[in-house]
Amino acid sequence: DGRRRVVIERVKPEIDAGRFAIKRVVGDAVQVEADVFADGHDAVACVLLWRSLGTDRWSEIEMEPLGNDRWRGAFPVEQLGLYHYTVEGWVDRFRTWRKDLVTRIEANQNIEIELIIGAQLIEAAAQRAAGADRKELLEAARQLAQGPVDRRSSRALEAELAALVHRYPDRSLAVRYERELPVRAERERARFSSWYEFFPRSTAGAAGRHGTFADCEKRLEYVASMGFDVVYLPPIHPIGQSYRKGPNNSLTPGPDDPGSPWAIGSAEGGHTAIHPQLGTMADFERLVARARALRMEIALDVALQCTPDHPYVKEHPSWFRHRPDGTIQYAENPPKKYQDIYPLDFESDDWEGLWNELKRVVLFWIEHGVRIFRVDNPHTKAFPFWEWLISEVQAQHADVIFLSEAFTRPKVMYRLAKLGFTQSYTYFAWRNTKEELTAYFTELTQTEVREYFRPNLWPNTPDILTEYLQFGGRPAFVGRLVLAATLGASYGIYGPAFELGDNAPRSPGSEEYLDSEKYQIRSWQLDNPWSLRELITRINRIRHDSPALQQDAGLRFYPTDNPMILCYSKSSSDLSSVVLVVVNLDVNHTQAGWIHLDLDALGMHAGAPFQVHDELGDGRYLWQGARNYVELNPHTLPAHVFRLRRRVRTERDFDYYL
Amino acid sequence: DGRRRVVIERVKPEIDAGRFAIKRVVGDAVQVEADVFADGHDAVACVLLWRSLGTDRWSEIEMEPLGNDRWRGAFPVEQLGLYHYTVEGWVDRFRTWRKDLVTRIEANQNIEIELIIGAQLIEAAAQRAAGADRKELLEAARQLAQGPVDRRSSRALEAELAALVHRYPDRSLAVRYERELPVRAERERARFSSWYEFFPRSTAGAAGRHGTFADCEKRLEYVASMGFDVVYLPPIHPIGQSYRKGPNNSLTPGPDDPGSPWAIGSAEGGHTAIHPQLGTMADFERLVARARALRMEIALDVALQCTPDHPYVKEHPSWFRHRPDGTIQYAENPPKKYQDIYPLDFESDDWEGLWNELKRVVLFWIEHGVRIFRVDNPHTKAFPFWEWLISEVQAQHADVIFLSEAFTRPKVMYRLAKLGFTQSYTYFAWRNTKEELTAYFTELTQTEVREYFRPNLWPNTPDILTEYLQFGGRPAFVGRLVLAATLGASYGIYGPAFELGDNAPRSPGSEEYLDSEKYQIRSWQLDNPWSLRELITRINRIRHDSPALQQDAGLRFYPTDNPMILCYSKSSSDLSSVVLVVVNLDVNHTQAGWIHLDLDALGMHAGAPFQVHDELGDGRYLWQGARNYVELNPHTLPAHVFRLRRRVRTERDFDYYL
Repeated sequence: DGRRRVVIERVKPEIDAGRFAIKRVVGDAVQVEADVFADGHDAVACVLLWRSLGTDRWSEIEMEPLGNDRWRGAFPVEQLGLYHYTVEGWVDRFRTWRKDLVTRIEANQNIEIELIIGAQLIEAAAQRAAGADRKELLEAARQLAQGPVDRRSSRALEAELAALVHRYPDRSLAVRYERELPVRAERERARFSSWYEFFPRSTAGAAGRHGTFADCEKRLEYVASMGFDVVYLPPIHPIGQSYRKGPNNSLTPGPDDPGSPWAIGSAEGGHTAIHPQLGTMADFERLVARARALRMEIALDVALQCTPDHPYVKEHPSWFRHRPDGTIQYAENPPKKYQDIYPLDFESDDWEGLWNELKRVVLFWIEHGVRIFRVDNPHTKAFPFWEWLISEVQAQHADVIFLSEAFTRPKVMYRLAKLGFTQSYTYFAWRNTKEELTAYFTELTQTEVREYFRPNLWPNTPDILTEYLQFGGRPAFVGRLVLAATLGASYGIYGPAFELGDNAPRSPGSEEYLDSEKYQIRSWQLDNPWSLRELITRINRIRHDSPALQQDAGLRFYPTDNPMILCYSKSSSDLSSVVLVVVNLDVNHTQAGWIHLDLDALGMHAGAPFQVHDELGDGRYLWQGARNYVELNPHTLPAHVFRLRRRVRTERDFDYYL
Repeated sequence: DGRRRVVIERVKPEIDAGRFAIKRVVGDAVQVEADVFADGHDAVACVLLWRSLGTDRWSEIEMEPLGNDRWRGAFPVEQLGLYHYTVEGWVDRFRTWRKDLVTRIEANQNIEIELIIGAQLIEAAAQRAAGADRKELLEAARQLAQGPVDRRSSRALEAELAALVHRYPDRSLAVRYERELPVRAERERARFSSWYEFFPRSTAGAAGRHGTFADCEKRLEYVASMGFDVVYLPPIHPIGQSYRKGPNNSLTPGPDDPGSPWAIGSAEGGHTAIHPQLGTMADFERLVARARALRMEIALDVALQCTPDHPYVKEHPSWFRHRPDGTIQYAENPPKKYQDIYPLDFESDDWEGLWNELKRVVLFWIEHGVRIFRVDNPHTKAFPFWEWLISEVQAQHADVIFLSEAFTRPKVMYRLAKLGFTQSYTYFAWRNTKEELTAYFTELTQTEVREYFRPNLWPNTPDILTEYLQFGGRPAFVGRLVLAATLGASYGIYGPAFELGDNAPRSPGSEEYLDSEKYQIRSWQLDNPWSLRELITRINRIRHDSPALQQDAGLRFYPTDNPMILCYSKSSSDLSSVVLVVVNLDVNHTQAGWIHLDLDALGMHAGAPFQVHDELGDGRYLWQGARNYVELNPHTLPAHVFRLRRRVRTERDFDYYL
C-alpha cells in the first residue's frame, strides 16, 4: 500500500541486521532507539513492540521523541530465553490537527471548519474505542461540532481529550520496521560473576598425593570465604597414556606423572567419564551440591579433543582426519606437534553424528548439576557447530552459561560471542599501559561490541603468567587484581597461584609457569602470610555491594596528568551507585598527579565538596571540583577504589556524607 | 551443511543491510571490503562477485588480504543501471598445506607424508581442471608423490604450481555472504555537473516583455560561454489565475502580472502543457536541441502541485483532500495559507491512479528530450512514491537524473537520497564558518553518507538570498562561488542574479529577493562590468581540467591557525590530480596565517620543495614542508585554488615543475 508514509530506520541496538541477538539479563531494560519520520510536517507516533519466543502477541510501549527524528523506548526482559523487538510508526492525524489548531488560534484565524475536522477525527477514534471511552469520544465529537466557537475550541484543546483520542490511533496505514531483532535474556550470573580456577588434584595438601573431590569440598570453603561465586575446574576426565607429558611439558614422563587434564580420554572413558583418582560420579554430585550450599557454582571445562586412547578413536574413526599412511592426524601448529592430542574433524562426513554426540556430552553434565561451562579453544572448532550447540542447549536449559576461552584474532573472538557464548576471555592480561587499557575497554564497553561480548578478565591462567606479574612483585598482583575486578563485571583468577604470588616462569621469556599444575600435582601453602586472600575478600565484597561494578556499560575514563595514573569510574545507569578507581600502573615508584573528573557524569554538583571513601584502603578525602590530587605508593597499596559520598546538611548544622 | 566453516561479515559498502543501492557512475570502480575468516589457523580465500541486473552469471575477482581478517576487492561498473555484488569465501586447503610445508622444511621435519598429502590435493585440483592445466596438475601430483624428497619438495614450493592449483579451488564448502548488495551505475553527469538556473520569461532583454524559448536559445550561448553543463528552468507550464500572487508575493496582482511559475495549471493545461507565452512544444524541442549543440542539457522542474485551475482538479477530485464544507484543502503551513496551491493527496484512495499519472508526466518530458529533472519539495510527497517513480523511470531510461530540492530535516534529506534521487540540495548556503563547513562536508564526504547522497551546492536560489550574500559584497559572492565549485563536484547558481551580485532582500531579515523573478519579469544587464562572468568561466574551466574536483570522496581539510582561513584539498584516488583550496572567510579584512598540510595525503615528498600555482589568481609560490604561510585580501581575491606541481630535475640541471 503506497499510502504507508512513515519511515523507520537505524534501529539500535541491531547486530548484523538482526542476524545475532543482543544480550541482557533478566530484570534488565532493553533500550531501543530508532529514526521515525514521515514526509511533510505531519506528526508521527511510534511504539516499541516486543514479545518472548513462543508468544504470538506483541506487547508495546509508546516511544518518546529525542529530537532530530530520533525516538526512544524501553522494555523489560522478565524471563530467561529469547525475545524479539521491533518498531511500528504511523502518521498521527489528530496530533497534527491539534498542533495546527493551536497555531491557528494564536493567529486569530477562523477555525470553524477546523473544529468540524477535529470532530470527525474524534468520531473516527470513537469507532475504534468501546465502552465508556467510546461514549466519551462520541460526546466530545458532538461538542466540537456545534455551539459557540470559544467553548468548542477550549474543549478541543483539553489535554485529557488528546490523551483519550491518543489511545485509539488510526494505525491502518502504520509501518512496521522490516526486521524483528532478537535479545537473549540470561540470568544475572551471565553479567556479573567472580571466578576462581583450581586444579582438583592439587587439593590434597600433602605433596604428591592426588587430590579427590572430597578434598575439593574442603577447598570450596576457602574459595567461598573470599567471595567468589563460580569455581571452574580444569577437565576432570580420564587422562590418556599415549605420548603423556611429564613435568614442565617434558616428553619423558615418569610412571607416576599424572599427565595433563586436557589430554582427555583413556581406556577408562572419555568426556562423560570421571578420572578415577578424583572420585566417582556420586562424589562429583556431592561436590556440586556443596558448592551450591556455599552459594557457588561449579563450572566444567569443555575441551573437545581426544588422546589416542579416547574411546571415540576406535568407535568413531570418521570423526578424525586420516593421513595417507593410515595414521590419524594429531594436533599440529607447525613446526609444533602435539602427538598426545587428536583434534576432532569438523569437516567429517559424519559431522552430524559428531555434533549430536558433543551435545550429548554437554547435556550429560547438565543432568549432573552443571550449569556453567568454560569452553577450551572454541576458535579451533567450526563456528556453525557452536551456534547450533549453544542454541540447542539453551532452548532446553536457558540458564546455562558458556565462557569462550579464545585467545585469538579480535574478529574471531567477537564472532564467537555473537553466535552465542555468554562470556568471553579477553586480551586484558596483556593490556598494561594507560593507553592500552583505555583504548581496549572503551572498545569493549562504549561501542556496539558491548551488546554481545561480555568480557571476563583474568590476570593469570594456567597458560598465562605475564611478564608484568613475573617482574612486578606484589604491586603487580594487587594492581592487576584491582583492574580485573573493577574494569570487569566478570573476572577470575587461577589460584592458589595468584593469591600466593607464584611468579616463576618455566624459562626466561616464557609465559608458562615453572612446575605448572598442568603437568604435575602441586601443594599450596594457603596460609602463607604473603597471601592476597584478605585483599581479594575485600574487593569481592566491594563488588557485591556496588551495582556499579556489576555491569560494564557504565565505564568512563578520566584524563590524568601522569601517564602512570589510570582513573575511571563505573556507574549504574541511574547513578545510584558510583565507584571511582585510581590505579598506579608503576609497580616500582610512588606516582602522583591530578585527575580531572566529569562531575556531571558522576552525578556530583560542581560547587559542593564531596567525600571520597577508599573502600580498599579505608582512607577518606574531602574533594571539591573536577580537578583533584592523588598519590599512590605501590608498596603500600597501588590503587584507590572510592565510593563517592555527597555531603548532607542536617538541621542541626552538622554535616555528614551519604 | 555444518561443514561450511567460513564467516563473511561487515561487508562495506552496505546501506541499511542492502535495502538501498550505493551510487556510482559508469567507469567507476566499486571497492568492497569484508571480514572473511574461518576457525583455527587454516588459510581462507575469497572472491568479490558482481553482476548487472538481468545477468544470471556472476563475474568474480579474488580479494586481497588487508590484515586483521579484512579483505578488499574492486570491480568496474561499465554500463548504466543496477548491479549487485556479494562475497564468497572458502577454506583454502592447498595454501594452508603449502604454508605449513615451508615451516616444516625450515624445522627440518620429515615431510614424506606431507608431500603425499600435497600430491592428493593437487590431484583433486586436477579433477576440477581440464585440458593442459589438468595434464600439468596430474603430472605435478605424480612428481610430488615419488622420487627424491629434495626434488619433490622444491617442486612442491614452486610459485607457478601454487598459482595453477589456486585456479582450481575446492569450493564445495564455500560460503556466500547472505545478501546481494545493489549499486546504481549512472552517467558521469550524476557525479560531476555545473548548473545554471534562469527564468525563461526574463530573457527578452526589454523590460516588461515576456521572454520566449527563442530568447532562451540566445541566453544559452551566454550560459555555455561560462562553462556550465546543465541549464535548469523553473516550471514552464501554464500558470493559474486563482489567487495569483503579484510582485513581491503580494495578494493583489495587476492584470498583467505573470504569477509564479510554481503555480501550475490553468485552463490551458497542466504538467504536460507549455505556458503559451513561452512558445510551443516545437520551440521547446528546439531549445533542447540548441542546448545539446552547446554541450549542455535542459533540466526541467518537477513541482507536483496544482492551482485551483489545474485540469486535475476537475478530472480527478479524489487526488485532493476535501474539507467538510466541500472545498478542497489548499496548502498551509499554519498559520500561513497558500490558497493558490492545492497539494496532491498521497493518501488518496486512488493513489495508484495518481502515481501512474505523475509517472506519465515525467515520461512525457523524457519523450521530448529531457533527461534531468529538478524536483521541487520532494519531502512533502510520500517516500514510497519517489522510490517507485525513480526506479520505474530509470528502468526504462537509466540515464535520467533527479535532483532533490529538499531543504528540510537531515534524515528526510538522506532518506530521499537513499531511495533514489541522483543528487540533492544541501545546507551549504547556511554553512559559513570554518567549523560549520568542515563538520558538514566531513559528514557528507567521509562517512557512509557519501555512498548515496551526492551534494549539489547552491550559494543562492530564487528562494535563498543568504545574509552572507546580502551583506558581504563582492568578496562574499566570490568566496561562496569558490567554495561551492570546489567543495562540490556538483554545484549551481541562480543567475543572472548571482553573477550580477543581486543582493537586495525583500525586507530586512528576509532571505527572499526584492522584486523576485518568482513573481515578476526582470531584465538583466548581462554586460555589467561588476559581473563575475569571467571568474565563473575560469573556475568552471579549472573544474573541467581537474579530475580531483569532479568527485567528492577525495576531500580533506587541513588545520590552519586562523579561524577565518579555511584550507582543504581534493584529490583523485590515484593522486594524479590534486587541488588545494584556501579561502578567506572574512569578507572585510585581509587574513593571513599558517596552514598545516598533510604532504603524504597530497602525494608530495616532505623534503622537496614544490610549487603551488594559483589557477584562479595566477600566482605561483614555492613551498617546502607541511607548514606554509598564506595571506588573502578579500577585496582582491579571497581564495587560492592551487595546483600542486612537483619539481622535476632534468638532465641539464634545469628544474621545472610538473
